Amino acid sequence: MNFYGNVNKVLYGGDYNPEQWPKEIWKEDMRLFTLAGIDVLTINVFSWAALQPSEDEYNFSVLDEIIETISVAEMKICLATATATHPAWMARRYPEILRVNADGSKRKFGDRENSCPNSGIYRMYAGRLARKLAERYGKLENIIAWHISNEFSGYCYCDNCQNAFRQWLKKRYKTLETLNAAWNTSFWGHTYHDWEDIVSPSFLGGEWTGHQHRISGSCQIQSIDYRRFYSDSLLDCYLVEVRELREITPQIPVTTNLMGTYWDTDYFKWGKHMDFIAWDNYPWPDCPYTRISMNHALMRGCGNGKPFSLMEQTPSVTNWQPYNSLKRPGIMRLWSYQALAHGSDTVMFFQMRRSRGCCEKFHGAVIDHCGNENTRVFREVAALGEELKKLGDAFLDSRIVSQTAVLYDWDNWWATSISAGPTIDMNYPEEVYRYYDALAKQNYSVDIIGVDTALDNYKILYAPLLYMVKPGYAKKLKRFVNNGGILLTTYFSGMTDERDLVTQDGYPGELRELCGIWVEETDALLPDQKNGFVIKDGELAGTWKAEMLCDIIHPEGAEVIALYESDFYAGTPALCRNNFGKGQVWYFGARPQQELLDRVTALICGGQEIKPVFPVTEGIEAVCRIKDGKEFVFVLNHNKNDMKITISEASRDIITNKKFDADECFLLPAAGVLILVKN
Amino acid sequence: MNFYGNVNKVLYGGDYNPEQWPKEIWKEDMRLFTLAGIDVLTINVFSWAALQPSEDEYNFSVLDEIIETISVAEMKICLATATATHPAWMARRYPEILRVNADGSKRKFGDRENSCPNSGIYRMYAGRLARKLAERYGKLENIIAWHISNEFSGYCYCDNCQNAFRQWLKKRYKTLETLNAAWNTSFWGHTYHDWEDIVSPSFLGGEWTGHQHRISGSCQIQSIDYRRFYSDSLLDCYLVEVRELREITPQIPVTTNLMGTYWDTDYFKWGKHMDFIAWDNYPWPDCPYTRISMNHALMRGCGNGKPFSLMEQTPSVTNWQPYNSLKRPGIMRLWSYQALAHGSDTVMFFQMRRSRGCCEKFHGAVIDHCGNENTRVFREVAALGEELKKLGDAFLDSRIVSQTAVLYDWDNWWATSISAGPTIDMNYPEEVYRYYDALAKQNYSVDIIGVDTALDNYKILYAPLLYMVKPGYAKKLKRFVNNGGILLTTYFSGMTDERDLVTQDGYPGELRELCGIWVEETDALLPDQKNGFVIKDGELAGTWKAEMLCDIIHPEGAEVIALYESDFYAGTPALCRNNFGKGQVWYFGARPQQELLDRVTALICGGQEIKPVFPVTEGIEAVCRIKDGKEFVFVLNHNKNDMKITISEASRDIITNKKFDADECFLLPAAGVLILVKN
Amino acid sequence: MNFYGNVNKVLYGGDYNPEQWPKEIWKEDMRLFTLAGIDVLTINVFSWAALQPSEDEYNFSVLDEIIETISVAEMKICLATATATHPAWMARRYPEILRVNADGSKRKFGDRENSCPNSGIYRMYAGRLARKLAERYGKLENIIAWHISNEFSGYCYCDNCQNAFRQWLKKRYKTLETLNAAWNTSFWGHTYHDWEDIVSPSFLGGEWTGHQHRISGSCQIQSIDYRRFYSDSLLDCYLVEVRELREITPQIPVTTNLMGTYWDTDYFKWGKHMDFIAWDNYPWPDCPYTRISMNHALMRGCGNGKPFSLMEQTPSVTNWQPYNSLKRPGIMRLWSYQALAHGSDTVMFFQMRRSRGCCEKFHGAVIDHCGNENTRVFREVAALGEELKKLGDAFLDSRIVSQTAVLYDWDNWWATSISAGPTIDMNYPEEVYRYYDALAKQNYSVDIIGVDTALDNYKILYAPLLYMVKPGYAKKLKRFVNNGGILLTTYFSGMTDERDLVTQDGYPGELRELCGIWVEETDALLPDQKNGFVIKDGELAGTWKAEMLCDIIHPEGAEVIALYESDFYAGTPALCRNNFGKGQVWYFGARPQQELLDRVTALICGGQEIKPVFPVTEGIEAVCRIKDGKEFVFVLNHNKNDMKITISEASRDIITNKKFDADECFLLPAAGVLILVKN
Repeated sequence: MNFYGNVNKVLYGGDYNPEQWPKEIWKEDMRLFTLAGIDVLTINVFSWAALQPSEDEYNFSVLDEIIETISVAEMKICLATATATHPAWMARRYPEILRVNADGSKRKFGDRENSCPNSGIYRMYAGRLARKLAERYGKLENIIAWHISNEFSGYCYCDNCQNAFRQWLKKRYKTLETLNAAWNTSFWGHTYHDWEDIVSPSFLGGEWTGHQHRISGSCQIQSIDYRRFYSDSLLDCYLVEVRELREITPQIPVTTNLMGTYWDTDYFKWGKHMDFIAWDNYPWPDCPYTRISMNHALMRGCGNGKPFSLMEQTPSVTNWQPYNSLKRPGIMRLWSYQALAHGSDTVMFFQMRRSRGCCEKFHGAVIDHCGNENTRVFREVAALGEELKKLGDAFLDSRIVSQTAVLYDWDNWWATSISAGPTIDMNYPEEVYRYYDALAKQNYSVDIIGVDTALDNYKILYAPLLYMVKPGYAKKLKRFVNNGGILLTTYFSGMTDERDLVTQDGYPGELRELCGIWVEETDALLPDQKNGFVIKDGELAGTWKAEMLCDIIHPEGAEVIALYESDFYAGTPALCRNNFGKGQVWYFGARPQQELLDRVTALICGGQEIKPVFPVTEGIEAVCRIKDGKEFVFVLNHNKNDMKITISEASRDIITNKKFDADECFLLPAAGVLILVKN
Repeated sequence: MNFYGNVNKVLYGGDYNPEQWPKEIWKEDMRLFTLAGIDVLTINVFSWAALQPSEDEYNFSVLDEIIETISVAEMKICLATATATHPAWMARRYPEILRVNADGSKRKFGDRENSCPNSGIYRMYAGRLARKLAERYGKLENIIAWHISNEFSGYCYCDNCQNAFRQWLKKRYKTLETLNAAWNTSFWGHTYHDWEDIVSPSFLGGEWTGHQHRISGSCQIQSIDYRRFYSDSLLDCYLVEVRELREITPQIPVTTNLMGTYWDTDYFKWGKHMDFIAWDNYPWPDCPYTRISMNHALMRGCGNGKPFSLMEQTPSVTNWQPYNSLKRPGIMRLWSYQALAHGSDTVMFFQMRRSRGCCEKFHGAVIDHCGNENTRVFREVAALGEELKKLGDAFLDSRIVSQTAVLYDWDNWWATSISAGPTIDMNYPEEVYRYYDALAKQNYSVDIIGVDTALDNYKILYAPLLYMVKPGYAKKLKRFVNNGGILLTTYFSGMTDERDLVTQDGYPGELRELCGIWVEETDALLPDQKNGFVIKDGELAGTWKAEMLCDIIHPEGAEVIALYESDFYAGTPALCRNNFGKGQVWYFGARPQQELLDRVTALICGGQEIKPVFPVTEGIEAVCRIKDGKEFVFVLNHNKNDMKITISEASRDIITNKKFDADECFLLPAAGVLILVKN
Repeated sequence: MNFYGNVNKVLYGGDYNPEQWPKEIWKEDMRLFTLAGIDVLTINVFSWAALQPSEDEYNFSVLDEIIETISVAEMKICLATATATHPAWMARRYPEILRVNADGSKRKFGDRENSCPNSGIYRMYAGRLARKLAERYGKLENIIAWHISNEFSGYCYCDNCQNAFRQWLKKRYKTLETLNAAWNTSFWGHTYHDWEDIVSPSFLGGEWTGHQHRISGSCQIQSIDYRRFYSDSLLDCYLVEVRELREITPQIPVTTNLMGTYWDTDYFKWGKHMDFIAWDNYPWPDCPYTRISMNHALMRGCGNGKPFSLMEQTPSVTNWQPYNSLKRPGIMRLWSYQALAHGSDTVMFFQMRRSRGCCEKFHGAVIDHCGNENTRVFREVAALGEELKKLGDAFLDSRIVSQTAVLYDWDNWWATSISAGPTIDMNYPEEVYRYYDALAKQNYSVDIIGVDTALDNYKILYAPLLYMVKPGYAKKLKRFVNNGGILLTTYFSGMTDERDLVTQDGYPGELRELCGIWVEETDALLPDQKNGFVIKDGELAGTWKAEMLCDIIHPEGAEVIALYESDFYAGTPALCRNNFGKGQVWYFGARPQQELLDRVTALICGGQEIKPVFPVTEGIEAVCRIKDGKEFVFVLNHNKNDMKITISEASRDIITNKKFDADECFLLPAAGVLILVKN
C-alpha cells in the first residue's frame, strides 16, 4: 500500500503548522502554495495540547478549519496523529508519562518525543486520540496517509520500562538459566536468581561514557538487549496507534518519519509495520553525495524495496547544526531529484512557513518570515514544483533493480559500538559507508539490505564488519556463495552469535569455512599508525594503506591476494579470496585504502558481469528506476562545476524533453539533473 | 550618593578577613596597612556562621573587636552584610535554602553564593541580619558603605523557584493566552491551559547542553524569561537587605560587587538600585587592555555614568585560572590607574592578607603568607598608596563625557547565545567588544549604554548584533539618527521583538527603513570559510575579510559601500550606508576584519568632528575625566616597552608634577602612567 | 609472610574462571596449563552470586569441584574471597549496599567493586563469606594465599558514608574547634557548630569538575580528608575479611591486588596490613619502561621492600584502552622478567581462558577463544613457563638494596591535584616520575618510599613536589642531610602542613633552613611559555629549559647553581644547592629539562660514590636482586633493536647458563634478558 486516493504525480509539499498563525495568514499560504505547485501538506504533528485541552475535553474546531482550508485549496493531507508531544497537563497529572534519564533523573515537561513509550497512560491516550482522528477525518478523500507521532526516538529508564524490559527478556529467554548463559553472568558475578534482580543498564549501573563519550557497558549483551527492547518499545507504541487507525480506516496507509542511519531504532523491524517508509533527510553541509544516497538506499531497503516518501528536507537551511550554511542555489533541486532517483515518490519539506518563535525559527521554510514569494528559496521551490507537475506519474511506483547489495544490521551497530575493544575507531555506519561508497560511486545499482532480506536476486553482497552472525545467517551466506554469489567481508566479522558470545571455533567463527581462513589475533592500530596491503601484480598491484585493525590470518584454502607491509606480521596475508562452490569470498584483514576497495569492487562487478548504470565520472551519480520494463535513468551532477558526459544510447530527458543521440556529448551543468528514457 | 563620611582621596584597601587569624596578627596588619597607605577595609563578607551560631543566637563580639581595631587604626570600613554564605546549621534545618541544580539534584551545604534567592527563610534571616548590623554599627562614622552579600550569581531550579517563576510570568503576561502567544507554544505542542503546567526550563526539560557546551533550549523565550526572572530574583534578594538597611541608615550608601560582562545578572537593571556601582576586575593574563576598559565602561554605564568603585582586583596573582601568572612589576599600578581613568574612585584588592587554607590560599594578597612587608608585591602596593595619598581628591567624583556609545543588552546576550542557529560562533560580549575596541583603541571617549539610556548626548551609536529590538527602541534610534546621529549596526540585528518572535516584515524588521536595506537570507560560514568585503575606492579601498555570518542584502535606498568577494552572492552588497534624516546608518552584513572596522570608525568619528582624547599610538590608552570643567587626561602605556609620545598642549602630570611644554616629546616607560592637566 | 606451602620457584599462572564454562572444558584447561608450565591459579574472584544464591543459602558444590580439579592437576591456588561484586539479590533486598555517586544519584546493581564499603550489611555478609571459605578450604595445602575482593577502589557518597566520615573526623580532630581551625572554616563562612552539619564534599556541594575535568574544591582539606577517609574505609572493609581469615587460617598469607600509582587508595597505609603486596600491571602501549619500573618500585616500597606478586598482566592485549595493540612478540616475556627484576616472585596473568561474553571478552588470555595451544600467545607463555621452571628458586625471596630513594606520598598527590592554583599542569605521579626516571634510566638502584619509611639506608633522597610536609618530616629530612644525605627537592614544596594550611614562615616553610633559600613568589608559565636555567660553567654548563612553575628565590646560604634566563626575574636563582651538616640539599625552582636532571643526578650519585648496577646504555635496564649476598643482575633490552653491551665481570646468565668473560661484548637481542650471576 502506497498513498491513498488519487495520486498521479510526485507529491510536493511538507510540514505545515497553521495553528502558529492567525487565520488571515492561512489564505495567503494557500495562494503561495498553489503558486509553488504544492499539493500535499503534513499537518497536526504537534497539536495534542490544542486538541485535548484537558483530560475529558477534546476540541477539533481549529483542526476542522485547517482541514477545510486545505481541502478547499485542493491540496492533499498527510494527517499526523499529534502524539509526538503529550500535553503539559498530562505530564503534571500523570508523571509516569515523563521519561527518566540514563542518570536516573526524572524529566519534566518540555521538548518533544518526550513520552515514556511503556507508559500505559500515554498509550491509552495516544491510541484514543488516533481513533478520534480516524473517526472524524477518516472519510476525507484528500488524506493520503496517517503520520504517526514524529521521529520516534530516545530512551527511558523508569521503573515501568524496567518492568517491561524484564517481560521482554522473559519472552526472549524463557528461563533465568538461559538468560544467565546468554548474558554470561558468571562474569563479574552477575548471576541472577530472580527476574526482579535485573535492572535496565544505565549510568547508574552497567553503563558509562567511555573514550570519546561512547557508551560503554560491563555486560554488552545486556546493553544490546536494552536497545533491542527499546526499539521494540517504541515500535509497540507506534503499533498502538496503528491498530486504532487500521480498525477505522483500513484503506489509508500508515507511516511515520524515520531518520536514516539512526542509532535508536532498528528500522528493518519497523519497515515491516509501515505501509510505506517515510524519512527525513538532513545531510550536513559537506556530506558526500554517496553518504546521502546510502541513507536513501537504507530506507528503501527497510521498506523492502518499495518506493518511499522523502518526508522532510530543508528548502534552504537547518537551525541545529553548529554552522548552518545555506543550501547553495540548485542544491535543493538536486537533492530532491536524488531522493526521487533512489525511490522516493514525494518531495516534501520541513517547513512550509517559517515559525516565528522557539527553536526552529531559524530553520528554513518555503515561505520565509517575510511571508511572500519574492525570495530565492521560494522561487527555487516554485520552479521545482512546476517541473514535478510536468513529470506527472512517469516513474511513480517504479522499482530499482540491483544485483549488488550491502548488508546493514542495527544489532551489529549496537554490538560493535558498545564493544570494549579492540579499537574506538569502529563506527559501524561510517565503516559500512566505505563499502557502499565503492559500489555507489561507480554507479553500480546497489541495495542496502537487512539480515532477513532474501539474497536470491543478488550476485554480490558486501557484508563488512559482520561481527555478530545471527542464527542461520552463515548458512544463508553459504547458500548464496555456493550458488555463485560473491561475498565480501572484513576484519571483526564472525566474532559472536546473537547473544554476543564469542565463537569458540576460531575467528571468523561461522564464516571460517566460507572465508577459507583462520584469524589468530587482531592488532589495533594507533591513530597515526599505518600498515599496508602489498600486492605484487595484476589489476590490484601496488601498496595500499591498511588502517584501524589488522587481522593476523592463516589461510585455510583461501588464496592470498595481499600481504602486510610492515610490523611483526609483515609478509603475512592481509587480503584473501576463497573459492566456495560456484562463488567466491573476499576477506579484508584490515581497513583498505578507498582506492583499493574501489578497484576490488570494479574487479568483482566485472567478474559478475555487472555494469554501471551510467559511465563512471567523478561526482556524476546515476540511478535507474524501472516501471513496467521502462528504465528511468537519473543522472545527477554533484560537482560544483559543469561536467561533460556522454550519453551512450539515444534517449530523452523527461524533465526538459531534450533528445540525445547515441554517444552524444553533453555538458551537464553543476547541480544539473537528467532523467533519461530510451527513445 | 557615593561614599559616606569624610572621603577626600581615592580610597585604597580591600577585603580583609581577620577572623581567619588570631588577634595578635591584627595589630601587625594595622601596622602594615598604615605602611602601605591603606585606608579602607571590606570586612564581614563571610561571617554569617560566626555571627549567628544557631537559630536564636547572635554573637557580634568578634566583629565588635575587629571594627574597634580598624577604627583605632583610623581606617574606613566597607561593611558587608555577611549573607553570601548561609550558616551550615541553616542548611540542615531548612533544606529549602539549598539550591537545586539544573539537572534536578538538590545541593548540600558547601561553597558560597549558595542560597536559593527565592527561599522565604533565607530572605527572612538575611534581612534580619542586615538590620541587626545596621542597628549595631550604623552610627559609626568610618563606615563608607554597605556591601550586600557578594557577587550575586547562579541559578536554582527548586519548586519554590518554579512557583516564583509562574508568579513572575503572571505579572509579565497577565493571561495564559498572552503567554501562549508570546512563547509561540503551539510550536511542538506546548500550549498551556494552566499556569501550574509551566516548569522552570532545565536539563530535565526544555534545555540541554549543545555544541561547544552552550546551553540550548527548545523554547528560547522560556529560557530567556527564566534568565530575566532569575536576574530579578537575585535583585529582589538584594533588595530585601537594602530595605532593612535604608530604614535604619538612610545616610549610608548601599552597593554590592558586580563582575563586568557577567552572564547571570542584567546589571543595567541592578544599577538602578545601587547607590554606586562596585565591581571586581579579574582579567586573564593576555587580556587586551581595551577588553578590560570595556568592562570598566560597562560598569560605569550601569551606574548611569557616575563614578564607581573598583572593589576587587588581585595585587599579584589569581588562583582559579588554569595558569596563574604573576602580574608583572608595574602592572598592578597600571591597571589601578586604568580603573581610575575609567571612573573608579577607589582602588581595592582582594585580598589584604593571604588566607592559609581553602581554595583562595594561593590567590595573591597585599600581605603574603610570610606576613611581612619585604615582598615585591607589598612594595608595589605601598608605592601606589603613597601616590594616591598625594593625588588627594583631584579627580574624585569627576565625570567622563563621551560623544560615542556602544549598546550592550543582557537580553540580547541571552537571546543570541541560546539561539538555535545560525552559528555557534556568536559570542555576544566578544562580538560587541570588536566594535568597542575600534573606538577605544583610537582613544575616542566611549560609553557603554543600555537600551534605557538616553541618546541625546551622543553623536555616534554602535549597536552591533541588535538581534532583539524592544518596544520603542527602533523609534528611539530613528529619532537619534534623524537628529544627526550616526548609527552602526550589523548582521543578526532587528530579528525579533522582546518576546523573541521573529519579525514578519523582512529582516532587519523594525530597523529595515532605518538601514535602507532588506536582508533576504543569512549564510553561516564554517570556521575555516572566509568571504571578503571588496571596496573599490576611497579611504576604505581594499579587500577585507568577512567572517561568521554573511547577510544577503537588497538595498532599499542605502548606498552600497562594499560588495562580497566570493560565493554565490559575490558582487552583492556586504556593507551599506543609509542617509536617514540628518544622520546616517551603517550596516555590516558580515563580521568585518578589525582593520576595516577601525577605518570605518575613524571615518565616522571624523565626519562627526569627534577627536581622540590623545593622539593614537599603539598600546597607549587615554581617557579623560572632567570635574568642574577641569580635564584630567589619563595616559597609560600598556606596551611592554617604553613609548615615545607627544604631549600637544602645555600640561602637568599630577602624579609627578612634571611639566610638559606644548608638543613636547616624552618617553613614557612601559606600564607608565601620566595624569595630565592643562597648565 | 610470603606464600604459604611448598613454593620453590617463581609461581606462574593467573586468573581462572572455570565457572564460565562447562565442566568438560576444565579438563582440557588442565592439560593446556600443564603444557604451559602453569602452577598457580587465582579463582573465585567473582563467585559470590553463585556461592550465595539467596540470603540464607550457600552452595559451594561447584567451587568444590573446581578446587578438586585444580588440586588433582597439582596446581596451587590463590583463593579469592569472591566479595568484589555483591549478589544482585542483595542489592535489591538491601539497597544500602549500593553506592551513591558524587552527583547524589543512587546506583543500581551492575559492574563490580560496587558495594558501599561503609555498609554494615555488606561488611557482615562479606566477612561471613570469607569465614565460610576459610572454614571449608583453609586446610588445603595448595592454597598459597587469600586474595581479598579485587582492586579495591571507588567512592560512595551515601548517608552511611557521610556519618562514617563524621566519625572519622571526630577521631582525627577530637573537637569542632580543632576541625574549624584545621579546615580554616572561617573562610567563606563554613564554621561548623555541630558535627551533623558536616557533609561529604561532592558535586552537590564543595566540589566540582574544573579545568581539564580535574576535581576542584572550595575547602581542599575537606576534600583531602574525604580521600583519606575513603582510602581508610576501603581498607577497613578489607580488614573485616582479614580478621575472619586470620582467625581460622593464621598460616595463610592475605593479600589483595593493588594498581600502582592509583588515585583512590594510599597503598603505603595498605601495605602495613598485607602479608605481601600483589599488583596488576597494565601499561599503555607506548609506556616508557622506567614508568613501568616506577610502579614496581612503588609497589615494592609499599610492602617495605619485601618481594611482591605480579598478580595480573595481560599475555597479549587489553580490551579497555582506546586502541588495544597486541603486545609484540617477546614483550610479555620481557615485562615478566622486568617484574621479577624489581622484586616480584610471581608471574601471573589476567586471564587464563578468554571469556566469551561481557566486557573483557576481548582482553587477552593464555588460552584464546579457539581453545587450543596453537597460538603465538600460548607458545610464548609456554616458553616462559619452561624457563621459569629451570630457574627454580634462584632469586626467590631476594631483596633489592638501594642507596637512592624517591619519595611518593598520596596526601601530596591529592593535595597538589585538588589545589586551586598555581597551575593545572601539576600531575603528581608524572612529576615524580621525571625524578625517578633520572635515577632509573641511569641504572642506579632506586627505591620508592613513603613518609614513614626510614631514611637510614639511603644516601640520596629525591622528594619533588613535597608540597605538604607532615609533622616531624622536616626534622627527619634534616637528620638525614645532617648525617651526609643528599636531598633534592623542588618548586611547590614546603607549602603546607598536614592540614593543608600554608606556612607563615616563608616558603618553603619547614624546609627553608634546610634548602637555604626563601621563595618569595611563584610564577606559573602558560603552556607555550618557557624560561631557562642558565649555568655558566662546570659539568652542568649550558642553558636548559625551565617549565611549568618558576619560583622567585632569595638564597639564604645556598649556593646559586643556575639563574633564570628570561622574564622579569631573569638573572635570579633558578637552581640552588645548600650545604647542611654533612650533606647537601638541591632545590629546583622550576621544572628542569630532563637532560639537566639526568646530569645533576649523575653528579650527585657520583659525589655519593654510588655506581650504576650496570653501565648506562640507552634502553638497557639493569636491576640487582640480592639473596644471601649473591647478586642477580637482571639486564633487559627495552629497545626494538639488538644492543651491544659489555659485561664487565666474568659472569653467567642463569636463564641460558651462558658464561661471559670479564669485559666481554655481547649483542643482547631486542627484548632480550640476562640474569647475571658472578662466576
